[in-house]
Amino acid sequence: MSALQEYKTLIVKREGSRLYVTINRPEFKNAINHEVVEDLTAITRAISTDRTLRTLILRGSQGTFCAGGDIRGFKESFSGPAPEAGEPDPIAENNRRFGDFLIQFNALPQTVVGVIEGAAFGGGLGLVCVTDIAICMADAKFALSETGLGVVPAQIAPFVVQRVGITQARRLALSGARFDGRHAKEIGLVHFLANTADEFDATLKTVLNDIGRCAPGANAATKRVLLDSLVGRLPQVLDAASEAFAAQLRGPEGQEGVKAFLEKRPAPWVEKV
Amino acid sequence: MSALQEYKTLIVKREGSRLYVTINRPEFKNAINHEVVEDLTAITRAISTDRTLRTLILRGSQGTFCAGGDIRGFKESFSGPAPEAGEPDPIAENNRRFGDFLIQFNALPQTVVGVIEGAAFGGGLGLVCVTDIAICMADAKFALSETGLGVVPAQIAPFVVQRVGITQARRLALSGARFDGRHAKEIGLVHFLANTADEFDATLKTVLNDIGRCAPGANAATKRVLLDSLVGRLPQVLDAASEAFAAQLRGPEGQEGVKAFLEKRPAPWVEKV
Amino acid sequence: MSALQEYKTLIVKREGSRLYVTINRPEFKNAINHEVVEDLTAITRAISTDRTLRTLILRGSQGTFCAGGDIRGFKESFSGPAPEAGEPDPIAENNRRFGDFLIQFNALPQTVVGVIEGAAFGGGLGLVCVTDIAICMADAKFALSETGLGVVPAQIAPFVVQRVGITQARRLALSGARFDGRHAKEIGLVHFLANTADEFDATLKTVLNDIGRCAPGANAATKRVLLDSLVGRLPQVLDAASEAFAAQLRGPEGQEGVKAFLEKRPAPWVEKV
Repeated sequence: MSALQEYKTLIVKREGSRLYVTINRPEFKNAINHEVVEDLTAITRAISTDRTLRTLILRGSQGTFCAGGDIRGFKESFSGPAPEAGEPDPIAENNRRFGDFLIQFNALPQTVVGVIEGAAFGGGLGLVCVTDIAICMADAKFALSETGLGVVPAQIAPFVVQRVGITQARRLALSGARFDGRHAKEIGLVHFLANTADEFDATLKTVLNDIGRCAPGANAATKRVLLDSLVGRLPQVLDAASEAFAAQLRGPEGQEGVKAFLEKRPAPWVEKV
Repeated sequence: MSALQEYKTLIVKREGSRLYVTINRPEFKNAINHEVVEDLTAITRAISTDRTLRTLILRGSQGTFCAGGDIRGFKESFSGPAPEAGEPDPIAENNRRFGDFLIQFNALPQTVVGVIEGAAFGGGLGLVCVTDIAICMADAKFALSETGLGVVPAQIAPFVVQRVGITQARRLALSGARFDGRHAKEIGLVHFLANTADEFDATLKTVLNDIGRCAPGANAATKRVLLDSLVGRLPQVLDAASEAFAAQLRGPEGQEGVKAFLEKRPAPWVEKV
Repeated sequence: MSALQEYKTLIVKREGSRLYVTINRPEFKNAINHEVVEDLTAITRAISTDRTLRTLILRGSQGTFCAGGDIRGFKESFSGPAPEAGEPDPIAENNRRFGDFLIQFNALPQTVVGVIEGAAFGGGLGLVCVTDIAICMADAKFALSETGLGVVPAQIAPFVVQRVGITQARRLALSGARFDGRHAKEIGLVHFLANTADEFDATLKTVLNDIGRCAPGANAATKRVLLDSLVGRLPQVLDAASEAFAAQLRGPEGQEGVKAFLEKRPAPWVEKV
C-alpha cells in the first residue's frame, strides 16, 4: 500500500483500518478529468482485496466536494477530430470508463463514507450516490447541471436513480435545479446533516464508531447481498444470502461476535476513533 | 399541429415551445372515459417526434385534475354481454389501452409538468405518476380509490410503484385512504406544494424557467437514459448512456453549451416565461 | 381453522374477518428461533386460500415486537458438527427457510397490518418489511443489528431494500445504528406513528376501518399486481393487470361496488371495528 502515495490528483492517507481519500484539484474545484478517473480507478483496484482496510472516507480538498466533469476537458475533446465511421468514439469510451469506476467503487467491500462540503455538481453528485453513508453540510450545494450545458448525466444516471428514486431523479435532471444539503437529506441523497464544522466532525466520528462496531467481513458480505438484491432474482439472492450467513456464523467473526454478545463484552473487532 | 384543435375531451394550447393540455370534462370532474384515453393517446403520438416542443403542461379543467375512471362507463361495460369463451374481453382490452397510453406518455421526449388542483383519484393519480415534475395545491385530494369500488388500480399500478415505492403503494392501494397535497409531497408523489393560487403560479413559472435553461435535446436524451435505468442491465445502460453523452457533446447543444459556459453567457436555447 | 389454536410460539385469535397473530416468546423478547419460523410458515399456509379472512394483524407479546434472531440458537448451531464437504450446510438451510416464509407471508392475499411496540431488531425489522401497513409507537426501537454480531442480515436483505430503498438499507446495515419510531416513519419503514397507547389503538382502528371499506377480492388482486410490478416486465404486468381488472369488474365485487357508488350507499363488504 505504499503505492497509495503516488496519485497525481488524490491525497491519500491511511490511519489504521481507515483510508482517507481526498480529491485534490482545488484550482478546478476538484472537477473530474481523465486523471481523476484514472486515479480513483487505481485506488479502487488497489484496495478491493485489502481486508485490513475497513472504511474509506471520500472528500474534496479545500471545502469543495467536486464540481463535476471538467468542462475545459469537454471543450478539448470535441475540438479534436471526430472518429472515423465505424470506429469507437473516444468521448464515449472515456465517459464509459467513469461508469466502470462507479460500478467498482460502489461495490467495494469496505464501508464508504462520503463527506460533502461546498459543491457536488454533476459527476460530483454521482460520487455521493456510490457512498454507503453520506454526511453533508447544510449549506452544501448540489445540482444535476449537465442538461444546462447541453450534455447528459450519463454514467451517473443509474446510480442517481438507485439513490433517490426515479421520481426525484427525473425532476432534478430535467430541471437542473440547485439545492442545498437540507433538501439533499429530505430526498435521501445524503443521510446526515451538519450545520457547523464541529457538528460535522462529531457526526463523522459517530458514523466511524458505528462502523467500528460492525464486523468488517460481515459488512463486506452484507453489502454484496444488498447490492445483489437490486439485480438478482429473489430465490437466487436468498440462496446466496443463506450461504453468506452460514459462512459468517461458522467463521471467526460469527463465533466471536455471538460469544461476546452472550458474555456482554465488546467483540474483538470493535474500533473507536 | 393544427390538429391540436380537434380533440373532443382536451383543450390544447401552444405557446412557443410549450404545450398546455387540459382535460376538459368538467361535468364529470374530468373523469377518464374511452374518449379521454383516445385523445390523450392521439396527442401523445402527435408530439412524440416534435422537437420544437420542449415542455408539456398537463392539468384538469375548472379546478379539478382528474377524478379517475368514469364509473358510469364501468357500469355500461359490465352491463353488456360477456365475451364468448376464448374471445378477448373488451373490458380488459380497453383497460390495457390506458396502460399503452401511460407507457408512451411517460416516455415522451418533452419534459412533462403536472399541475394538480382539486381531486386526483385512481387513474388521475396514475397520470400524476407519469409526469416529470408535479406541482400541487396543498389542499388537493388524492386517493387510490379503486379497491373501495371493488376494482383494481390495474394499469397505473407499476407507475405508482415506480413513483412512490412499493411501501407506500401497497398501503395506499389496500386502504384506499384519502390524503392531501402535503402528504403527497411527503411521500414523493409530487415535487412542489403551493398554498395559494399566486404561489401556485409562481412555482409553475420557476419550474418552466428551470426547464427553459436545460437543452431540449439533452433533456430528451437524459429522460431516456433515466427510464432505461429502471429496466436495463447496468453495463448496457452505461454503454448506451456513453453514446448519448458523446452524441450530445459533439452536437450543437454540447458545443454551444460548453462555449456559453466558458464565456459566461447564456446558452442559445435558454427560454423564459 | 381450529388448527389456529395449536401453535407453540404464537397466540392466534380470530375476530370475524380479522386474524390477530402474536409472537409469544416474551422471555426471549419474541426472538425468532426454528419454532417461530415453523409456526409462522404453518399459519401462512393455513390462511393463504381462506378468502373469508380479510386482514391479518401481526404483533409481539408483552410490548415487544421481535428482538430478531435467537442468538443462543446461533451458538448451538455453530457448536454442532460442520457439514461434510459437498453436503448442504444446515445453518444455510435453516436460514433459507426463513426467506421462504418471508416470500409467502409478503404475498398473502390478506391485507397485513404490523403493530410495532418496543424492539424490532434484525429479523424483527425484516418482519416489519413484509407488512402492507405498519403502525408503530414513537419510542419503538429498530436496528439492523446483525453485522454487530458478526453475521449478515441475509434473508431480510431484499425485503429491506424493497421497503426503504438501497440508500437507507446500506446505511442501516453497515452501521448497525439504532433508531426510533420517528425515524422509521421518516425513512418509510412504517406508515403511522403514535405517541400514546390511546393514539396507537385509535390509529389501528382507523387503519382497520379503511381496509374494511376495500373489497377483499380487489385487495388480494391489487396486492398481486403491485408485487408483480417489482419483478415482471412492464407489458406483461399490464396484460395481467388488465385481466385482473376485467375479472373484478365483471365479478360480484365490481358490480356491487359500482352500483353502491352510483346509488350513494355503502358497498356490501364494508366492515367496521
